[in-house]
Amino acid sequence: MKIYEFTQAPNPRRVRVFLAEKGINVPYEQVNLFTADNRKPEFLKINPMGGLPVLELDDGTHIAESVAICRYFEEIKPEPRLMGVDAKDKAVVEMWNRRMEFEVLWNIANSFRHTSDFFKGRIPQVKEFGEVSRGAGLKRLEWLDTVLADREFIAGPRYTIADITALIGIDFGRTTGIKVEENQKNLARWYQAVSSRPSAKA
Amino acid sequence: MKIYEFTQAPNPRRVRVFLAEKGINVPYEQVNLFTADNRKPEFLKINPMGGLPVLELDDGTHIAESVAICRYFEEIKPEPRLMGVDAKDKAVVEMWNRRMEFEVLWNIANSFRHTSDFFKGRIPQVKEFGEVSRGAGLKRLEWLDTVLADREFIAGPRYTIADITALIGIDFGRTTGIKVEENQKNLARWYQAVSSRPSAKA
Repeated sequence: MKIYEFTQAPNPRRVRVFLAEKGINVPYEQVNLFTADNRKPEFLKINPMGGLPVLELDDGTHIAESVAICRYFEEIKPEPRLMGVDAKDKAVVEMWNRRMEFEVLWNIANSFRHTSDFFKGRIPQVKEFGEVSRGAGLKRLEWLDTVLADREFIAGPRYTIADITALIGIDFGRTTGIKVEENQKNLARWYQAVSSRPSAKA
Repeated sequence: MKIYEFTQAPNPRRVRVFLAEKGINVPYEQVNLFTADNRKPEFLKINPMGGLPVLELDDGTHIAESVAICRYFEEIKPEPRLMGVDAKDKAVVEMWNRRMEFEVLWNIANSFRHTSDFFKGRIPQVKEFGEVSRGAGLKRLEWLDTVLADREFIAGPRYTIADITALIGIDFGRTTGIKVEENQKNLARWYQAVSSRPSAKA
């Protein structure tokens, strides 16, 4: 078993933090995004979408998509539960993880993808969409601050995959100047707590 | 228990088809998107994102996000399995469902959201992004045709939530002229099969 990933990219970090919280060690193999190794024919056989990370199982199966990889490890080593404990909680955690993906991580990632020199020539960039996404990302952090007024973590009283997704999204905000603001007291308290966990360094 | 939804929108249909495959009946309450009832304060208390569908449990919990709602029902009534049977299969199904969301449904939905009169004034439309998304959606259907060359359904030999997501995405393509082409033989065979299931009418 091994995981193809790239240390500097946000999605691979989601899986690394998830595994650190679970206490699972998997060998990593770097696929250099800077030199577009993820777009070479050899890698496209592993993941035709070209995305990282990808989990390779011992039988040769390749699992792409960060959350699908997390699901695999949640199933084979359930504790500590990061994706919910029963039907209702699993659904609540999935809802919050998706909100953190689509509202926070994606807006922030798209603000970078559509405005950065890095993605010039790699994707059809639409600068205006990058700016709309940046504005949306900033608004979503304001909203997330209000969400965190009545709870310790994003999906409730326990740390879950939703916290990991939000942390990675917010940290990636450095690429376009998006960050937790001082007046966002609840968000700042949460950010301090999740950033201080040893897993955040994974 | 009830589900807030709107019959003409694509995401609510994902949940209706999923429940039809499971043989589960849940009362539906319509929230009219045409009159923007999903943006009224009353509904934003149920889902601050304004999205449909939303599952309301008897204890008052609200579960938004289609796949989170499906997860709840997969947990309380596992058969027939639509989200995988064991750790590896659950991860494979989640990978394919996410690919169908991000590569097919989202590109098609964004081609509509960013170019249609319906969304004018509702979201910050970026026409160029809508056109880029439309082009990407068309390319992804070409790719999906090749994926289906060696398998009956999208995630392998069994019908899963990934087939539901792809079906709803492709059917929504009617809004911007995206459809299965005659020369896409594998995709056409699959489309015919999944469209013929009684659940497709849900």
